[in-house]
Amino acid sequence: MASESEAQRALQYEQTLMYGRYTQDLGTFAKDEAARLRLQEGDTPRPRRPSELLEYTQGRCAPCRVCALQCQRFLISKVGEDWVFLILLGLVMALVSWAMDFAIATCLQAQKWMYGGLDTNVLLQYMAWVTYPTVLITFSAGFTQILAPQAVGSGIPEMKTILRGVVLKEYLTLKTFVAKVIGLTCALGSGMPLGKEGPFVHIASMCAALLSRFLSLFGGFYENEARNIEMLAAACAVGVGCCFAAPIGGVLFSIEVTSTFFAVRNYWRGFLAATFSAFIFRVLAVWNKDEETITALFKTRFRLDFPFDLQELPAFAVIGIASGFGGALFVYLNRKIVQFMRRQKTINRFLMKKRLLFPALVTLIISTLTFPPGFGQFMAGQLTQKDTLVTLFDNQTWAKQGLSDEFEYLGILEAWRHPRSNVFVTLVVFILMKFWMSALATTIPVPCGAFMPVFVIGAAFGRLVGESMAAWFPDGIHTESNTYRIVPGGYAVVGAAALSGAVTHTVSTAVIVFELTGQISHILPVMIAVILANAVAQSLQPSLYDSIIRIKKLPYLPELGWGHHEKYNVRVEDIMVRDIRYVTLNCRYRDLQQVLHSTKMKNLPLVESAESMILLGSIERAQVGALLSNQLSPQRRLLTLRQKVLSEDGQRLSDSSIRFQISTEASSGTPARPALRKPLKPALKRVPSSPADSPPAGATDHTGIALKSLFCANSATEPTEAQGTAYHKAKRVRISIVEEMILGDKMTPAEILEWEEQQLDQLVDFSSAKIDPAPFQLVEHTSLHKTHTIFSLLGLDHAFVTSIGRLVGMVSLKELRKAIEGSVTAKGVKVRPPLASFRDSTASTSDADTTALRQLWDRHQHHPMPREASPGGEDDDDDTPKGQ
Amino acid sequence: MASESEAQRALQYEQTLMYGRYTQDLGTFAKDEAARLRLQEGDTPRPRRPSELLEYTQGRCAPCRVCALQCQRFLISKVGEDWVFLILLGLVMALVSWAMDFAIATCLQAQKWMYGGLDTNVLLQYMAWVTYPTVLITFSAGFTQILAPQAVGSGIPEMKTILRGVVLKEYLTLKTFVAKVIGLTCALGSGMPLGKEGPFVHIASMCAALLSRFLSLFGGFYENEARNIEMLAAACAVGVGCCFAAPIGGVLFSIEVTSTFFAVRNYWRGFLAATFSAFIFRVLAVWNKDEETITALFKTRFRLDFPFDLQELPAFAVIGIASGFGGALFVYLNRKIVQFMRRQKTINRFLMKKRLLFPALVTLIISTLTFPPGFGQFMAGQLTQKDTLVTLFDNQTWAKQGLSDEFEYLGILEAWRHPRSNVFVTLVVFILMKFWMSALATTIPVPCGAFMPVFVIGAAFGRLVGESMAAWFPDGIHTESNTYRIVPGGYAVVGAAALSGAVTHTVSTAVIVFELTGQISHILPVMIAVILANAVAQSLQPSLYDSIIRIKKLPYLPELGWGHHEKYNVRVEDIMVRDIRYVTLNCRYRDLQQVLHSTKMKNLPLVESAESMILLGSIERAQVGALLSNQLSPQRRLLTLRQKVLSEDGQRLSDSSIRFQISTEASSGTPARPALRKPLKPALKRVPSSPADSPPAGATDHTGIALKSLFCANSATEPTEAQGTAYHKAKRVRISIVEEMILGDKMTPAEILEWEEQQLDQLVDFSSAKIDPAPFQLVEHTSLHKTHTIFSLLGLDHAFVTSIGRLVGMVSLKELRKAIEGSVTAKGVKVRPPLASFRDSTASTSDADTTALRQLWDRHQHHPMPREASPGGEDDDDDTPKGQ
Repeated sequence: MASESEAQRALQYEQTLMYGRYTQDLGTFAKDEAARLRLQEGDTPRPRRPSELLEYTQGRCAPCRVCALQCQRFLISKVGEDWVFLILLGLVMALVSWAMDFAIATCLQAQKWMYGGLDTNVLLQYMAWVTYPTVLITFSAGFTQILAPQAVGSGIPEMKTILRGVVLKEYLTLKTFVAKVIGLTCALGSGMPLGKEGPFVHIASMCAALLSRFLSLFGGFYENEARNIEMLAAACAVGVGCCFAAPIGGVLFSIEVTSTFFAVRNYWRGFLAATFSAFIFRVLAVWNKDEETITALFKTRFRLDFPFDLQELPAFAVIGIASGFGGALFVYLNRKIVQFMRRQKTINRFLMKKRLLFPALVTLIISTLTFPPGFGQFMAGQLTQKDTLVTLFDNQTWAKQGLSDEFEYLGILEAWRHPRSNVFVTLVVFILMKFWMSALATTIPVPCGAFMPVFVIGAAFGRLVGESMAAWFPDGIHTESNTYRIVPGGYAVVGAAALSGAVTHTVSTAVIVFELTGQISHILPVMIAVILANAVAQSLQPSLYDSIIRIKKLPYLPELGWGHHEKYNVRVEDIMVRDIRYVTLNCRYRDLQQVLHSTKMKNLPLVESAESMILLGSIERAQVGALLSNQLSPQRRLLTLRQKVLSEDGQRLSDSSIRFQISTEASSGTPARPALRKPLKPALKRVPSSPADSPPAGATDHTGIALKSLFCANSATEPTEAQGTAYHKAKRVRISIVEEMILGDKMTPAEILEWEEQQLDQLVDFSSAKIDPAPFQLVEHTSLHKTHTIFSLLGLDHAFVTSIGRLVGMVSLKELRKAIEGSVTAKGVKVRPPLASFRDSTASTSDADTTALRQLWDRHQHHPMPREASPGGEDDDDDTPKGQ
Repeated sequence: MASESEAQRALQYEQTLMYGRYTQDLGTFAKDEAARLRLQEGDTPRPRRPSELLEYTQGRCAPCRVCALQCQRFLISKVGEDWVFLILLGLVMALVSWAMDFAIATCLQAQKWMYGGLDTNVLLQYMAWVTYPTVLITFSAGFTQILAPQAVGSGIPEMKTILRGVVLKEYLTLKTFVAKVIGLTCALGSGMPLGKEGPFVHIASMCAALLSRFLSLFGGFYENEARNIEMLAAACAVGVGCCFAAPIGGVLFSIEVTSTFFAVRNYWRGFLAATFSAFIFRVLAVWNKDEETITALFKTRFRLDFPFDLQELPAFAVIGIASGFGGALFVYLNRKIVQFMRRQKTINRFLMKKRLLFPALVTLIISTLTFPPGFGQFMAGQLTQKDTLVTLFDNQTWAKQGLSDEFEYLGILEAWRHPRSNVFVTLVVFILMKFWMSALATTIPVPCGAFMPVFVIGAAFGRLVGESMAAWFPDGIHTESNTYRIVPGGYAVVGAAALSGAVTHTVSTAVIVFELTGQISHILPVMIAVILANAVAQSLQPSLYDSIIRIKKLPYLPELGWGHHEKYNVRVEDIMVRDIRYVTLNCRYRDLQQVLHSTKMKNLPLVESAESMILLGSIERAQVGALLSNQLSPQRRLLTLRQKVLSEDGQRLSDSSIRFQISTEASSGTPARPALRKPLKPALKRVPSSPADSPPAGATDHTGIALKSLFCANSATEPTEAQGTAYHKAKRVRISIVEEMILGDKMTPAEILEWEEQQLDQLVDFSSAKIDPAPFQLVEHTSLHKTHTIFSLLGLDHAFVTSIGRLVGMVSLKELRKAIEGSVTAKGVKVRPPLASFRDSTASTSDADTTALRQLWDRHQHHPMPREASPGGEDDDDDTPKGQ
């Protein structure tokens, strides 16, 4: 088992690093395991209150105690209410956020102190400046790797996937929580250009999951999946809200980033939790005497009467458009870095071995370049992220206003001044350097986000444009009555919102900047820039989070983009797979075998008969495998053998037969059928089979020939394939039973083959299989637009296409994705130019419907008994669905 | 037809007034009519460009022209893009909004001027003060009634219903647009406490619908229903956005008010359109020299450094809680007034006759009470709504600060001062009077909203609390370093957001106030107050819009409220109707007749057979009626008769027979079957049958006896029932055919009865019927929560409940509504206490599924041919579904 867990850890590392790949099996496994855990939890004893009450009524001060108990019970019942949960979540997250901020500030202070204390020797200064972040980042990377590799990265892509209904294993556990909190604190404390927004979304979600599990000890209301998803959605809002003290922006940002369809009834949940969290977060600052009262995090003091001139709007629009291109470039750069690292086999192999080398190297490069006495002097290298933002949002104009008045750089503003160059050069260098540094730094496998670095770069770009405008119009743009100077700080606010909006494809960054700066006077410029930036960025690149989802191969559904109105005219029949395998209700085991041979579909449709093709439900592939292996199990074979022997030998062996049955049950622990089904669950885990796992050869060589041939056909070169492992494991259980038996297996391989052939000809008994009775159905004429809506609304993975109850095809996420992305090339998918299927909807729909119905009706009239006609001719039905 | 259209107008009046009732039939009719119109539009000739191109290439300066044409074509193709539409919409709405604001301001100015000019005589002054608004309101009411009664009221409830997928007739037409714009301008120009937010949502939606219809002249992309709904959602955001120049708040408010589930991919649409609209709206003000640059509508100038003290937060919380109660009271009062007017039969009858009396009376009362020299002096009666808000958000403190400094009321602030009382009395009187006035005024049948009046009342209440606080702590609440005085204007902002949030059940009023005032410094108090107000109001009353939806009997689905977690444990099987009628594929016409007799369901499920109960689709009731009337039509009877005669008389009559067939087709204009189906469409309109409508008696007395008995059974006392009318109309068409025939009807009633009995025994031919092949299906174990989600996500009206393909029940909006509202008392609905069905989900689900499947499987094994077993025993199946 040690090797297994190590292999698993390696897999998790793969998973969470960008080098990893996503497998659906893991999700299924996690779901099953969650269900198992839930069942186990259900077994824990609940407080038995009625009996306690009875006990107390015997005592003397019984009324008091009864009253106290009732109060307690009332409180416990209140614990189940949503708002209690949300307020608790807000409180906990505010405390976590504040504590982390405090720790990060201390770390940064320590670096500054060290750097300042060593000002006698530049080399020592450099060593201190470089070593400190390298150690912190390396520790963060190592700690996260060892404790929970799932904590790596932003977390928003994973939360988006989880909220889509996919269960990602180990993403919401205490271990990951601890790893993420400590890893993030160290990473941010290093002063690298990393953000905390994404990780905070993840931390808040984990916090919600843990809190929900903790509170479920008191009440039974936290075990509902739908409710948990609602709570996770609220938690995402809390994450952003308490990170920036921006409740409204937090709610909106989390909606835009994680949801496709948002339930308005969850709105208040997010607002309540995020507001409470932001409130507590800021109150803690007041109590800590950092602030006098609750105000914005990066408070600005722009003038209110005349925030900007109408004629400045083109400049704001330019910021928006440029930010759009910049944002797309950032996403592209980030993805290319990851892909480069992954493709270069030698680099990849080397990095996989020395995992901590990459983070250390990147940190070294970045911190060397920002070293203040070195190149850092041209890019305000000594400022922390927070200080940089404060200075960029500054109220004053830095550029020279004519010749007379040289601007006095005071305090931390001095970092932007360089004696031999002007502020424009500093800003340009800052933007260019920070751009690639941020794109590179966010690929380090530590818990980190990209929002804040991008926000800072955007602010610097805005400031640059603002300073240029101020230099161009030193006395402000002329208006009739007064002259108002240009406020470059306002441009910085606009730029920050626009660039972060472009990278994340969100509009709500506008709201976040208002809440961050505490001023809403620049609302129109900000909105215009953000919308333009989004328009440009969305037409060039996916959002950063979608890009990471694709890199990590998480399941996703692309959005229907801007103005793709031709999509409205593609229908399901144009993209569906028509040539699908199915299971009939009256089929034989041989048919099941053939179906498993011929398809890799995760869910098989169950139809009434090959003639009627009426869809009854869907059955999981694993269930079909279980049915088949159960039918062909050596156990059944031996039982048959025994019965044959019994009938031959009469009463002689009856006693030992009974003994055998008892021993079988005792050894497997559960009745025969469940025992066979159970090993299938962990089987879905994709574990590389170690030698210890494989059953001893020879002893099992002649068992289950037909079954083996089945699985070997699918996985001849890959013995570790999911069902293969399942089969091996199931076999192992059975072998132990076999070995315990006194009689032993006395059949020859030829006899076994004959017996198995007999068994395969029997009709399938579906009574033990788990069947989904209502798989989602579409009709042929459903538009692509509607299909997309339904898939994203309900979080579907696949849907069957029916025509008056009859199965005619199937659409999965893959087909839909291809249809939307415009490259429908898969086998069995009909390629049609989107506009070719533009036709009058009402007429053709009813025509086609009635045609199909008439066929059905005619069939009923003319062939009253299709089922009886060909009872043996089912075998070839699996290959050619006659329905269409 | 004159009487019909008059009756229809009366119906519309009923519909749009609060006295009205909603009928589903109307929606269905509108849908059908829209489909018909679309078909007609499809026939209009499209520009044939290729041929034009060919023509031009013959000329001399052909290249230029080709180029120009290509440019034109490019432009036209661009017109189809979403963003062009959204920008056009924003532009148009900004112009409309600005023009209306200008007209309203002029109206109000005129009243003020008249009142000011007549200051020599109080009586004349009073006459002018009272007559002016009365005339305007009466004109508005009359104009709206005559042109388009749909324009009455807010429009948000109707938009919510339309966005849910229900088609409301005539709600998005040009006539309604004109009526609403002119009616609203007059209503607001009168100075009554009415708002413009709700009507603006409606106006923007109409604008979008008209623009979409206009642009579809250039391209074919505007005819998609899903797209239209997306555009309407964006239009709602534009409405709010350009009304308050609040793009973000507008988008959020419109989402909260109109949607249950919001597609995040529509987000940018709303933002783009609303931002552009708000921008143009404010730019128009700058160009008109009203403003120097673009700023907020009600700009405040609170101090930024220390907006409020932490110790003031309890006061803000009190405002929130009190506003919650106040908001609930407002909704209750508004509803009670409508219900009182409706219940009092005599008042109701009188008002229906003299429709303009009620508006005039209400206006008279309200304007009398606000007459400035009269009672108005105690409630700042001379201020318009806008001035009131400006004064309430004022930066200064009005109450006496100690004895020394009496506050100087300058300019319009003077209205709040009364020499013989203090500002507290004025504020209290203002709040109390405006409260009932607004609740009453919003029931007047003119286009008007309630948001602004409520907003003003909230601001006054906040101001009252603020002034009290300022009087209580004249030097501000003590802090260590400085003393900051309390800002009552901030309290007014908080109060405005809280009360309007409570009435509309939205959180986004917080964002609206930030955008309205241009300051975000009070974000935390506002958020706290709004959330508390929502919490209180939502637990007491529905939102104002939901209240109106209920009053108007529009279809709706209640929300799952705060913390109703027990809802998660109710399942579909607990609430579904099990005893439903269905149609089998191999049924006889007699069965159809019985089904129609026994149920009033709008959609009948079509199952394969009564034994298998496999759901194939659903068929509309009207379609079943059409099948039946087609089968029993006199036409078919005569044809049969003719054929019998023919076979008896040989070749003799063959010529006339052919002539008869031709004449039939010529007279009906269309082939026989469509002609019979078509009259069913307008039949769904609920028109009171005038005597002219009913067919001449005697001549048709002995036709279709069986049919008549069918419809009379359903509508014995109500001859105007929908199907009844349909039948009459269809009969009339047929009668004209009958009368044209040469042979005439020579069968006796007994013979007809016999023939019809024969016909009823035939198997139904479904090939001509329109069948919905994929009605929405749920399974028995679907939770109430999930059902609610799916119903609101997909805008469903009903869903069938199936178990492995077999129909076992049905859930409609009604059952769901009852289950949520907690009074499940309808016939056939099983009443269970919500928590009784609390059980372990995983175990029972799989058990029940396998049980049902095993039954199905057993059936297949033991009864291989259930269909053949009882071919004649279908009649009683309609009453007892054997499935469950």
